[in-house]
Amino acid sequence: MNITEWRTYLVTAAERSAGRSTAEVVAAALDGGVDVVQLRDKGVSDRERYETGLRVRELTAAAAVPLLVNDRIDLAAAIDADGVHLGQSDLPVAVARDRLGESAVVGVSASTVDQAREAEAAGADYLGVGAVYGTDSKDVSGDRDGIGTERIAAVADAVDLPVVGIGGIDASNAAPVVEAGATGVAALSAITAASDPTAATEALRAAVAE
Amino acid sequence: MNITEWRTYLVTAAERSAGRSTAEVVAAALDGGVDVVQLRDKGVSDRERYETGLRVRELTAAAAVPLLVNDRIDLAAAIDADGVHLGQSDLPVAVARDRLGESAVVGVSASTVDQAREAEAAGADYLGVGAVYGTDSKDVSGDRDGIGTERIAAVADAVDLPVVGIGGIDASNAAPVVEAGATGVAALSAITAASDPTAATEALRAAVAE
Repeated sequence: MNITEWRTYLVTAAERSAGRSTAEVVAAALDGGVDVVQLRDKGVSDRERYETGLRVRELTAAAAVPLLVNDRIDLAAAIDADGVHLGQSDLPVAVARDRLGESAVVGVSASTVDQAREAEAAGADYLGVGAVYGTDSKDVSGDRDGIGTERIAAVADAVDLPVVGIGGIDASNAAPVVEAGATGVAALSAITAASDPTAATEALRAAVAE
Repeated sequence: MNITEWRTYLVTAAERSAGRSTAEVVAAALDGGVDVVQLRDKGVSDRERYETGLRVRELTAAAAVPLLVNDRIDLAAAIDADGVHLGQSDLPVAVARDRLGESAVVGVSASTVDQAREAEAAGADYLGVGAVYGTDSKDVSGDRDGIGTERIAAVADAVDLPVVGIGGIDASNAAPVVEAGATGVAALSAITAASDPTAATEALRAAVAE
């Protein structure tokens, strides 16, 4: 799987999906051409995330789009996801690699150059870097005040890994993130809470392609 | 491993350990002769639970005492624990069995006869049944008002699995739980918050042996 081709990255957020199920939102984003999906859905039980994950796995597999799981290596294995995305205080990259195999994708959240270098040394396949813009979302790890696109540039310079910008990103502000050196952008509520998640995904794709 | 010989079962609680580390409390309980340890430690990061788990694994292995992990199949695999303990809204028993292997111990929390039968049908190795006595601990799944020893007897009658009573149990009230049909009793703060966890474990063992 070529991670450098991930332009638009959906992170699910059950609690901010305007009453729609995560499966509905994912289906709409797939229709809009999203490149990768991360199942996050904080605040629901493990069993519920597992049931949702099985449905989202079917949808993403049918669309030939990779599926990652936030934090949980066991859940990733249980739903046959393509990998996991780990935060700074989650289980180590080596544990994910050991449990999921060499071909699994392991992403790591980093908000500083030091964290990015550490994650690269630990064997991460890509970095989620943010929050790029200020956000009050607890769904974004790291500095919520906004690290800015300068930090995206500094991280992209410091490591050889694909960098996905995350945090406060929508179609209106995505282009500078990519211009700064990110290979793609992640969206949470810009897609999940949109009145039309398909259109929101298409708008984000267009903004990144510019 | 003979689960029917588990008389005293420690569930760790980092936040109610009187300022001691979980590793310290586990070491003291092992000195007191505890039969099995479950790493729970809610409210700390996955990384911290992993680091603690590696230390607790060393201690329990040296004492030849089984170690289980609450909820997390990935953490159990990462620290080479002997199994997991799953709540009603955690990942299914079949996922744990699939990831950890046939020889792993998989326990399930049940507070009713129906839940106990379901867990038995799903392939659980033992049941944690409670809360036996009223407890305000969020660490105990199920009915916190106290299901009473009558429910322990009903569950023990209904299934062929070992039953571990949990919830509000200490040396003063452990005997009726075993008399009702439990093979053992689990303690949280009765051991973790005790001024002397070794003595508290010994007292619990004595109460159960009576």
